[in-house]
Amino acid sequence: MEVVYLGTIHVTHHSIALKVLEAGKPILCEKPMTMCPAHTKELIAAANRKNLFLMEATWMRFFPAVVEMRRMIADGLIGEVRFVRATFSFRRPPERAKGRLTDPALGGGAILDVGMYTISLATMLFGGQRPIRVYAQGSTLPTGVDDFAAITLTYKNGEIAQLTCSISYDLTCDAVVCGTKGDLRLPHPFWCPTKLETPQGVYEREGVSREFPLPEPYLPGNYPNPTGLRYEAEEVYDCLRKGKKQSDIMPLGESLIVAEIAEEVMKQLGVVYYTTGSSIFQPN
Amino acid sequence: MEVVYLGTIHVTHHSIALKVLEAGKPILCEKPMTMCPAHTKELIAAANRKNLFLMEATWMRFFPAVVEMRRMIADGLIGEVRFVRATFSFRRPPERAKGRLTDPALGGGAILDVGMYTISLATMLFGGQRPIRVYAQGSTLPTGVDDFAAITLTYKNGEIAQLTCSISYDLTCDAVVCGTKGDLRLPHPFWCPTKLETPQGVYEREGVSREFPLPEPYLPGNYPNPTGLRYEAEEVYDCLRKGKKQSDIMPLGESLIVAEIAEEVMKQLGVVYYTTGSSIFQPN
Repeated sequence: MEVVYLGTIHVTHHSIALKVLEAGKPILCEKPMTMCPAHTKELIAAANRKNLFLMEATWMRFFPAVVEMRRMIADGLIGEVRFVRATFSFRRPPERAKGRLTDPALGGGAILDVGMYTISLATMLFGGQRPIRVYAQGSTLPTGVDDFAAITLTYKNGEIAQLTCSISYDLTCDAVVCGTKGDLRLPHPFWCPTKLETPQGVYEREGVSREFPLPEPYLPGNYPNPTGLRYEAEEVYDCLRKGKKQSDIMPLGESLIVAEIAEEVMKQLGVVYYTTGSSIFQPN
Repeated sequence: MEVVYLGTIHVTHHSIALKVLEAGKPILCEKPMTMCPAHTKELIAAANRKNLFLMEATWMRFFPAVVEMRRMIADGLIGEVRFVRATFSFRRPPERAKGRLTDPALGGGAILDVGMYTISLATMLFGGQRPIRVYAQGSTLPTGVDDFAAITLTYKNGEIAQLTCSISYDLTCDAVVCGTKGDLRLPHPFWCPTKLETPQGVYEREGVSREFPLPEPYLPGNYPNPTGLRYEAEEVYDCLRKGKKQSDIMPLGESLIVAEIAEEVMKQLGVVYYTTGSSIFQPN
């Protein structure tokens, strides 16, 4: 059983993945799957044509705290999901002023680097719906990439997601999902969480927190909670063993929606990597 | 030295305050000062005409943690302020399902009850600027009042505020201000804070926190940190003693901007208390 884990920089995913699929190998492809929805569609079509497994490596979705959050929502414990809020934002250190994060030739920008997680979380929690409206305000760097976006997504039945991403500001990076009956929170760092909480209420109500400890690392990592990568690896193994061509937890249709939203946000901020014509979303 | 503290429900502020000013008394008026910008303008004009002190009782602005935050910003410690994010949201308890919070006849709704704090904080941190664009998505209750709003404000030089308010969801209610050189955070409950922090960074950087303890209460209060009301009382005393007709920290012009933004947000959500004609903000 073989699988290619494609962890190269964003801009190379599309061309390398096409070659890997052509060579008959399944792929776990780092996020973002490609630089634009058109290219993501091409990869999905190629995987279908070759009958090969393809998944965007959104490790967040496989953490036990996230799995438990989905179970609680599916069991109706917070009622109908109405609002999602998520933030992924950090002040880039001086040593990263140049390079992948900020260089358009290397696929730089906040949305593709970290905003993707907030968009993917909202897409997951709203059951794979495509929003009907996307509104973004933000800013760009002199290099032309986005460094900050404040995003509002509106869905068919009035559900709303309010997202924030930046490579210029330090914000506490948590995520909250609010339902008609209750709320759940993934505290910082929400994209690789070890806790699932209920938020602290205003009227002296304390939040409650459950722990989901990770395996101890053998070696130091260069980002938080690296041993959490095992959960997505287990999902890939499980899918391959069962002969599945995509994951139910990170399905290809949702990777496409995430790419569509990301492209629309970048377009509204004036960042254009690849154009795919007029917007598929309603005007604001 | 006399002053009337007007702490009645929102909808009565305008008519009572006019009578109080007519009777020659200065006023500390609970927030929101009135239900709409047109009425706020009338109160400001009446106070000017009678040469009397008038201030919106936005106690948040006088807490030592907020005073220190303003000092640090004024001293350039976080550079130019570019982004403000604030949340004031709580899940209303069943015993408050009817009454002031949800009844339009009593001035109900999330924006006037708690959203005002987020709007006032952004207005203060952006130096009393009026935003050029206001975008809001949200929801209303069957009674017609707003119960949730996700707000984006855009200012002249591209500064952005992203605000959230609700009376239907429990969210951690913090506020963050991000500058070109650094970030500051007022943790929950940001509107009556006892701490000023730097946010926790992504790359294992811990946040730092400074404490600003409040005086001990003589009696239990029915909301958080009630002894913090003393700071706005001291400001009023100080203004009256000096013969000032408004506070430099909560000036009347900013009360008007807050009312204008609140009205525009409510209009976009379909909540209309009083109409003042076409929008003064640019289209989104």
